[in-house]
Amino acid sequence: MSAPLLEQLIEALRVLPGVGQKTAQRMAYQLLERERQGGKHLAEVLAVALDSIGHCRHCRDFTETEVCAICASASRDQHLLCAVESPVDRLAIEQATGYRGLYFILQGRLSPLDGIGPRELGLDALSERLAQGEITELIIATNPTVEGEATAHYLAQLARQQSVHPSRLAHGVPLGGELEYVDRGTLSHAFGTRSEMPK
Amino acid sequence: MSAPLLEQLIEALRVLPGVGQKTAQRMAYQLLERERQGGKHLAEVLAVALDSIGHCRHCRDFTETEVCAICASASRDQHLLCAVESPVDRLAIEQATGYRGLYFILQGRLSPLDGIGPRELGLDALSERLAQGEITELIIATNPTVEGEATAHYLAQLARQQSVHPSRLAHGVPLGGELEYVDRGTLSHAFGTRSEMPK
Ligand SMILES: [Zn+2]
Ligand SMILES: [Zn+2]
Repeated sequence: MSAPLLEQLIEALRVLPGVGQKTAQRMAYQLLERERQGGKHLAEVLAVALDSIGHCRHCRDFTETEVCAICASASRDQHLLCAVESPVDRLAIEQATGYRGLYFILQGRLSPLDGIGPRELGLDALSERLAQGEITELIIATNPTVEGEATAHYLAQLARQQSVHPSRLAHGVPLGGELEYVDRGTLSHAFGTRSEMPK
Repeated sequence: MSAPLLEQLIEALRVLPGVGQKTAQRMAYQLLERERQGGKHLAEVLAVALDSIGHCRHCRDFTETEVCAICASASRDQHLLCAVESPVDRLAIEQATGYRGLYFILQGRLSPLDGIGPRELGLDALSERLAQGEITELIIATNPTVEGEATAHYLAQLARQQSVHPSRLAHGVPLGGELEYVDRGTLSHAFGTRSEMPK
């Protein structure tokens, strides 16, 4: 006999980040007591999303279409490309700033010890894209961590090789912090006062 | 055109208790980036659980069978019944104590202003059960709040009407707690109900 469904549900909920045994219990009981409709909706959307969402062919962001809405939009500035480590960073910039260019999502940062090199971050494709000549500025918005800075320097070199201006978000983003958790005002200011990468 | 699936997923995750916009985003991205298998499993278990889990005919706890495992167990003491407000309380007692009797889950507490009376808590069924004569003690483990105490008094009367002994969990200074940090009400109660030191 398998475990009772309630225990299976509590165990399954622990796949969510930051959710331990106690929180999973609370979630399971709340869904059963008060949120059966919302819970069923979540189950449906989750199944469909995990089946259908892949990566955008151009920017590597998550999307259920071949090309994401931002890349497909004619109203975005086709000369600006902003490189971020992850989709949450893209989202944070999109929500906090007035940026209307395009993005490139690295889905990580250079980390040789973890086997994450230029290939894993899709930098071949990025290099080819910069070579096409439409992009004039590469805004490098990797996190201000050691690995994020190393990645930024690598990206700046890549840009210069293709005669594209690399720029970096201005100081204001706290050192060692993650873009995702920076308040909107700081992020917006840092984005607006970005400077050209020093050689 | 409906919202992108990713946004639908983030919105759907907010049905979980304590999950706001930021947390829901983090959960969605983590599932897509690293936990697709676990996420699919969660979607399946959640759908089945919400479809199949109802209330135990005897104790009103959540279960996918007509009678829950505890009520169906021949090894539990059939003379002891412990009344709790919610399934999490039942779980806490089960995990913390050596109690081997049965439970009755009120799924709430008396709250006339919210329209929650004896009927809503299943007290007709509880009264009938106490009348059958097998239960000798009703352990009342409602929370020590105003409404929980009112419910406890009501339950105690119900028990006495059927010649069942009502008992209540001891209140006092928590083990390992410092007097200095115990709230005044608890401390006053503990002082007033002090007992002689065992030799
Ligand atoms: Zn895209
Ligand atoms: Zn039961």
